Amino acid sequence: MTDELKDDRYFLAEALAEAEKGMADGGLPIGAVLVRGGEIIGRGHNQRVQQGDPIAHGEMDCFRKAGRQKTYSDTVLYTTLSPCMMCTGTIIQFGVPRVVVGEAENFEGNMPFLRERGVEVVLMDDEGCKDAMRRFLAVPGNLALWHEDIAED
Amino acid sequence: MTDELKDDRYFLAEALAEAEKGMADGGLPIGAVLVRGGEIIGRGHNQRVQQGDPIAHGEMDCFRKAGRQKTYSDTVLYTTLSPCMMCTGTIIQFGVPRVVVGEAENFEGNMPFLRERGVEVVLMDDEGCKDAMRRFLAVPGNLALWHEDIAED
Repeated sequence: MTDELKDDRYFLAEALAEAEKGMADGGLPIGAVLVRGGEIIGRGHNQRVQQGDPIAHGEMDCFRKAGRQKTYSDTVLYTTLSPCMMCTGTIIQFGVPRVVVGEAENFEGNMPFLRERGVEVVLMDDEGCKDAMRRFLAVPGNLALWHEDIAED
Repeated sequence: MTDELKDDRYFLAEALAEAEKGMADGGLPIGAVLVRGGEIIGRGHNQRVQQGDPIAHGEMDCFRKAGRQKTYSDTVLYTTLSPCMMCTGTIIQFGVPRVVVGEAENFEGNMPFLRERGVEVVLMDDEGCKDAMRRFLAVPGNLALWHEDIAED
């Protein structure tokens, strides 16, 4: 295993820990960490249900927690689920050059668009990330929460 | 003047009032209101400086304040400045069908991309909105804040 792949697995596991924390609190199991030079500078998870905040997706909560940055050009974002257009637009606007995605099976997201805009996207197809979403969606009523999260009817 | 144009001017003025409130608090003068059926259901302004929150652009703060919505398909977003990619992605993800933009002179934003994705975009080219950004940018040091806001070097 290369060092980079080892790092990617390590930080993705941290993003998944955030997702599990969110699910334990009754929220959607989507987490993210922002990394600079091998250190986590921000970590967050979807807080839409917990805070009644429609913009608090995992990636957004992570960016918020990281606080203001002079630049994102030296950062990597790890997220358990392929990003929606809100989070995709934020990644592009902030100029994050590399995004590691846990899975795109439960939600397709916008990986081709990110790549089109010059972002390096790595899809890990991680069983742990897929399983967290599956467990969440298996609970009655949660499918409606998920559809609301991505504003789908 | 048509009723729609009258309404658009009224709600844009409310967005500008939010922008002015933000500037009075030392923040960037960008405001937004979300409207459904002729009523404001959310209003906000850029809070990046005030709250140290990089995702708190005017439109995002407005969406947050509006809280969770079952649908955005019957809403109109009014914003004083042409939206950045974060706010653009959010408008698209949430399915807001119509956006009224105060001005695109101080920041080009992403109006063509919004239109490409099926959003009706109306540019008001409003003197009040332009003037607010101009007054803000004329203050020494504020240009750097603005560049940080849109993550430009």
